[in-house]
Amino acid sequence: VSSPEPAPAREPGPGEKLLAEIREQPQALLALLEHEAEYARAAAAARDRGATTVRMVGHGSSDNAAAYGIYAFGLLPGWTALRDSITLSVYYGAELAMAGSTAIALSQSGQTPDVVEYVERARRSGAFTVALTNDAGSELAGHAEAVLPLAAGAERSIAATKTYLNEVAALGLLAAHAAGRGRVFAEQLRVVADQLGQVIPTLERTVPQIALAFTFVGRMFVIGRGPEFATAREIALKLLETCRIAAEPLTATAFAHGPVAALDPLFPVWTIASHDDSLPAVVEAAGRVREAGATLIATGDAADTIGNADYVLQTPKPPSPLLSPLLSVVPGQLFAWALARAKGLDPDRPEGLAKVTLAR
Amino acid sequence: VSSPEPAPAREPGPGEKLLAEIREQPQALLALLEHEAEYARAAAAARDRGATTVRMVGHGSSDNAAAYGIYAFGLLPGWTALRDSITLSVYYGAELAMAGSTAIALSQSGQTPDVVEYVERARRSGAFTVALTNDAGSELAGHAEAVLPLAAGAERSIAATKTYLNEVAALGLLAAHAAGRGRVFAEQLRVVADQLGQVIPTLERTVPQIALAFTFVGRMFVIGRGPEFATAREIALKLLETCRIAAEPLTATAFAHGPVAALDPLFPVWTIASHDDSLPAVVEAAGRVREAGATLIATGDAADTIGNADYVLQTPKPPSPLLSPLLSVVPGQLFAWALARAKGLDPDRPEGLAKVTLAR
Repeated sequence: VSSPEPAPAREPGPGEKLLAEIREQPQALLALLEHEAEYARAAAAARDRGATTVRMVGHGSSDNAAAYGIYAFGLLPGWTALRDSITLSVYYGAELAMAGSTAIALSQSGQTPDVVEYVERARRSGAFTVALTNDAGSELAGHAEAVLPLAAGAERSIAATKTYLNEVAALGLLAAHAAGRGRVFAEQLRVVADQLGQVIPTLERTVPQIALAFTFVGRMFVIGRGPEFATAREIALKLLETCRIAAEPLTATAFAHGPVAALDPLFPVWTIASHDDSLPAVVEAAGRVREAGATLIATGDAADTIGNADYVLQTPKPPSPLLSPLLSVVPGQLFAWALARAKGLDPDRPEGLAKVTLAR
Repeated sequence: VSSPEPAPAREPGPGEKLLAEIREQPQALLALLEHEAEYARAAAAARDRGATTVRMVGHGSSDNAAAYGIYAFGLLPGWTALRDSITLSVYYGAELAMAGSTAIALSQSGQTPDVVEYVERARRSGAFTVALTNDAGSELAGHAEAVLPLAAGAERSIAATKTYLNEVAALGLLAAHAAGRGRVFAEQLRVVADQLGQVIPTLERTVPQIALAFTFVGRMFVIGRGPEFATAREIALKLLETCRIAAEPLTATAFAHGPVAALDPLFPVWTIASHDDSLPAVVEAAGRVREAGATLIATGDAADTIGNADYVLQTPKPPSPLLSPLLSVVPGQLFAWALARAKGLDPDRPEGLAKVTLAR
């Protein structure tokens, strides 16, 4: 008797993988928090070694998350953090003294060759090396002194979403523990996981009809300041990868120093407005966008303070301003997902990209 | 007897100011070298104080020049240099320990308010503060411990050219003196001034007809790696300001990690290829551009190593690879100047910009 044929696995439709992973973000964040003790230990080790210059390296979304780390380490323990140049050490062979540094490598897969090589060199140069990766058995993890799990779970979509979210949260958690405020930060992350669980279904309903209006858009600016510059970078990258839009991330100040001249009614602008000390600059930048006659989308927990926006995508106000990037990225993720489909593209299959980029 | 009326001053035509300043660059570079002794003294002071973490701040073109400083300080004295966040200290009030740091503020006018405030704070936090400005009598100069003249002369065009060039040269000269190699570097800069004097008239003849083909372009990528990432940023900013093109600067690696997916035949790419250790990555990126069917412009002193480029704008090979950004920026400046006119825009009057940006 032959056994019955198994039902053929349905091939997922365009964008289904990406959407599923956007939805998984609240759970991914909670999974990260199960590793809090490891983050506390790594922060203590960095403090004990006086390794208070933080060098972060990563590509793509990981490099965007590092832009958040500059603010997390600057505002919490008061440490200087930088997105270090991989090229300078790995390709040009510069010999930098790295005693007094913590080198944090961010890589979803833990396989990116030049990130691995950077960590080897940083360790030889005296840095305390930390790997932030989804794969604790990866080559990267094998080279670092401390391995901190991102715990985002398998990410199958090429465009990162939950990995980015957990990288941001991980850098914040590490910075908070370095400042002796890790417990409070972890509790606040739990609240954010809850807020994410509520806002994602709402945005899933409202974003697609807005995205439809941008079907023929080829270029955009994405403006965010301070910790939200990371969000601007990440949303711009999603738009590039999945929608083929030339989307340029800018701080509110950089925008005023040149790019404002490029605006016209066919050049829409996405702004991220959060309730913190950078809000006045973002509000001013938004005003200049409107003066130029460009279409304006306002997002973030202070979206409603942007006057005359064409579209408003409000996100919840987190327990502390430093957590707002975990929420404000979601409208952008869903917008990229919806707009790619409106453009007839499959957001799960960006042209010419593989999940693990081995390019050097 | 009434004196004769003076002949009315002719109003300069579109782009005349910008072109005049592009042409002045060889002289501007030589003028900077007259101040070499001041650069040597500032470098010695930084070394004596052990101020070997270099924090650079500036907006627009000045921030682009700072991207060069990361490589100049990394490769010459082996110091860690970063484009520091003004926002972090000035708007969020982060208190970073800056003993052991040299803070370099770059500002053409010396009037940019948040750059001035950054320098005040950095000095209080223990940094050795240096102002790089065209105006030694400016407010910025008054707050810094060392003032290094950019000596570019009055810059009347809103889009910076000779100031950017001199900022790059100034950072290189300071880094070279910090490494005890200032004399050699200064001699090499003299050679580059000569090369600039020869290549500018040639490019003035060849660039405009190429620019014409890009009249209806709305978006571009500009790819450069290592020290040439500064060039990529600067050319992209010129294209944004003067031609309203959404031009995104990318390293060859960042390009492969996402943006490559956005390419199509209507998305031209400008590549800067120089003879140094980053060349293979740039050649590989150029290959992917051609695979995507996108129009490719190859520039730099290794432009001729890029296969199948649609347009080649070769620049002279300087006495040392670290100097190539001083030459490779020129085709981009002239391209922006010519393309703005092809688009019917006046490159001397970008919409909504003033020469001194007071935006915070």
